[in-house]
Amino acid sequence: MNQTIAQLHERKSVRVFTEEPVSASDERAILEAACQAPTAGNQQLYSIIVVRDQAKRERLAETCDHQPFIAKAPLVLAFVADARRWWRGFGLAGAKPREPGVGDFVLSCQDALIAAQNATTAAWSLGIGSCYIGDVLERGEEQAQILGCPRYVVPVTLLVLGHPTEGQRARRKPERASLDEMVFEDAYVDVSDEHLRADLGRRQGADLVDAKAADERLRAFCARKWNSDFAREMNRSVAAMLAAFDGGRRDGDVRGEGE
Amino acid sequence: MNQTIAQLHERKSVRVFTEEPVSASDERAILEAACQAPTAGNQQLYSIIVVRDQAKRERLAETCDHQPFIAKAPLVLAFVADARRWWRGFGLAGAKPREPGVGDFVLSCQDALIAAQNATTAAWSLGIGSCYIGDVLERGEEQAQILGCPRYVVPVTLLVLGHPTEGQRARRKPERASLDEMVFEDAYVDVSDEHLRADLGRRQGADLVDAKAADERLRAFCARKWNSDFAREMNRSVAAMLAAFDGGRRDGDVRGEGE
Repeated sequence: MNQTIAQLHERKSVRVFTEEPVSASDERAILEAACQAPTAGNQQLYSIIVVRDQAKRERLAETCDHQPFIAKAPLVLAFVADARRWWRGFGLAGAKPREPGVGDFVLSCQDALIAAQNATTAAWSLGIGSCYIGDVLERGEEQAQILGCPRYVVPVTLLVLGHPTEGQRARRKPERASLDEMVFEDAYVDVSDEHLRADLGRRQGADLVDAKAADERLRAFCARKWNSDFAREMNRSVAAMLAAFDGGRRDGDVRGEGE
Repeated sequence: MNQTIAQLHERKSVRVFTEEPVSASDERAILEAACQAPTAGNQQLYSIIVVRDQAKRERLAETCDHQPFIAKAPLVLAFVADARRWWRGFGLAGAKPREPGVGDFVLSCQDALIAAQNATTAAWSLGIGSCYIGDVLERGEEQAQILGCPRYVVPVTLLVLGHPTEGQRARRKPERASLDEMVFEDAYVDVSDEHLRADLGRRQGADLVDAKAADERLRAFCARKWNSDFAREMNRSVAAMLAAFDGGRRDGDVRGEGE
């Protein structure tokens, strides 16, 4: 295993950071690695907002499912899907671009996440830990307001970064599923009911042979996560984001003829 | 710049591959690095389909905007957003999970892309080139059929991989935007009209001082890309994907009470 691949294996989420700031040169290296990431048609359909203002960081800690460590992290990066930059530029150049649609949103979201993962990998190679905050998909209207995002610009993930404490360094990375569970050949396969319950139960800490315990763990995880208020809010919030891409128009903002 | 960050900078898309196959051990290393990627709540909301069947590869080359190199690549990986696995497991365990919504789709899509970027980085560190095929978002119904994807499983990107030819090795990586254009502090900023036209025009190859030429380049790029038939098809296709997550039910498939 080469060093790069070893780092991809070792990298785990870090949520507690030392007081040591992320240096300006490390911050720049992380941002540059992000912006070198693969991108659809070299369009870079994202922007990155470095959140330094403490009041904004505290609001984000609150709007992202009440996670105070977000406000304490030495570096907070918001990755925003940006279907606005080119659309604006096309309009200014007289090209009559169609309005961005939900496909443009998803493609921009992909570009943003690819860039974020480069930032994550670059940071880890510098000894800097990170944690994705997917909760920024919840309460999307407030997140956009905090970060000043206009139409067709959507915060899709936060990355909080800093130097890991000793405790975080020592923490075991949660075990990932085996390749057998994740990888198929030529076609997707629904694994058998028994196999699936055992695999997912095991990933929630149940003994592999105790089917009843596995089911109990799955029911608890479902209640805590899948059926939670924040998961329902995420679905509401993302539906609202998508609606803004889905043909709704605001008069002052239309730059072309659209479809 | 350490070696990992240097590799993130050097990595560029590769679309022409030598005859050399990707070895089984390299393939496994790439898949394992992908599956070690960060993931929301350790849920790994994606699956990976290794497409070996030549007929399927040729169909994908066709459905992904007619790009024959897809069928010729030594290794073709489909990353599918998978909101089905846990939903099925929860249902089997008697947890009455709500139906997956559009938020679950976007979160799964993020997990899939984070994993795909780990695959990309691992491959490059092994001397193996890759190209993302975002066009798999077009003609989504056909892509799902080719890859045997049931409800709540959606192909969101393809990654084609192989050893770069000499020509590809020598090809210059397209220049990315400067950090000034991509990174903001505390709030998103709409740069001035003139600045935006110049920046985007330059990225399409126009001279920085020739505003008229920049506008011409932007209009041509808009016609070729943004206003193209494939971009319109992508938006139609993604809207159809989302509709499947948006409360539509099929009787035989409901495992819980839903919302």
